[in-house]
Amino acid sequence: MSVIAELSIFPMDKGDSVSPYVKRALNVLKSSGLMFQLNPMGTVIEGDWDSVMAAVSDCYKALEADCDRIYMTLKIDARKGREYGMLSKVAAVE
Amino acid sequence: MSVIAELSIFPMDKGDSVSPYVKRALNVLKSSGLMFQLNPMGTVIEGDWDSVMAAVSDCYKALEADCDRIYMTLKIDARKGREYGMLSKVAAVE
Amino acid sequence: MSVIAELSIFPMDKGDSVSPYVKRALNVLKSSGLMFQLNPMGTVIEGDWDSVMAAVSDCYKALEADCDRIYMTLKIDARKGREYGMLSKVAAVE
Amino acid sequence: MSVIAELSIFPMDKGDSVSPYVKRALNVLKSSGLMFQLNPMGTVIEGDWDSVMAAVSDCYKALEADCDRIYMTLKIDARKGREYGMLSKVAAVE
Repeated sequence: MSVIAELSIFPMDKGDSVSPYVKRALNVLKSSGLMFQLNPMGTVIEGDWDSVMAAVSDCYKALEADCDRIYMTLKIDARKGREYGMLSKVAAVE
Repeated sequence: MSVIAELSIFPMDKGDSVSPYVKRALNVLKSSGLMFQLNPMGTVIEGDWDSVMAAVSDCYKALEADCDRIYMTLKIDARKGREYGMLSKVAAVE
Repeated sequence: MSVIAELSIFPMDKGDSVSPYVKRALNVLKSSGLMFQLNPMGTVIEGDWDSVMAAVSDCYKALEADCDRIYMTLKIDARKGREYGMLSKVAAVE
Repeated sequence: MSVIAELSIFPMDKGDSVSPYVKRALNVLKSSGLMFQLNPMGTVIEGDWDSVMAAVSDCYKALEADCDRIYMTLKIDARKGREYGMLSKVAAVE
């Protein structure tokens, strides 16, 4: 199954400017080898379930080190028989 | 307050290909006059609270006409003193 | 359409203890006249679209007064022909 | 860290009545040994990160067997030093 996920993650105990922590998570995704696409409300990732969830866990653990409270949302659209879903989903509605 | 929202909306009663309905909602956003940015997991919108929520309602009502069950997620990041948030949020973490 | 929504809303600029602000939003829902059910990750509300979205806006505006950054998630399941959806949805899976 | 998560998961290719599949996921959570609490818009789970995410994966894989398209949302509130968070979070705002 092609799994497309959108991850938003940030600390709740670091004040209202959280970009350094979002950047830390983004760097984890950059080194995950997965296709990803940043947008103002999260980062979309594509891969198989286990690879995507491993990357999500790595992002969480990168913040867990020095954050006392973390908020995360994950939206997933998993579909059989889909390839390059990030591109095809957008093309289908534009 | 600058309100940035990400909307995902689709019918649950039309089978697993929902792009015609997502396209219908996207067209509502296109005619809303609000800045928007499509991504594989939703559409990010920016404006003041009332304009953003009016656009969200218009998207819902465009589907309500002929859909028996609708699923929607809305994520909102509202911040005082921010302008062009969609651009600045991405720039702050890239 | 019966609209069931789950609202989570909190400030990002008040440190990691946000319960006073969640309580403020919950009080708005209590006085909305809508059926609601609190859980550890949000509050589920049931009503028609306009009433539910008006209550969500009132919760947001109750926080906007003294919060510089607000994060909100809203999940909606709207369905034709459903009554007492909060009860029937749970009963259908227990 | 105490991890509280809310999971919503359903197939998009089975029509608008998805309770048999939600029930299947709920049964996975029941046998996970984790504390959980069902509500009309999802199921709240509490545990450590790895146990919670393993349960989420088991729920997904229980549906993957015979569903062609799956939609999932996961909200997570992880906090250091919290015990029985599901109870204390609700008590703090009621």
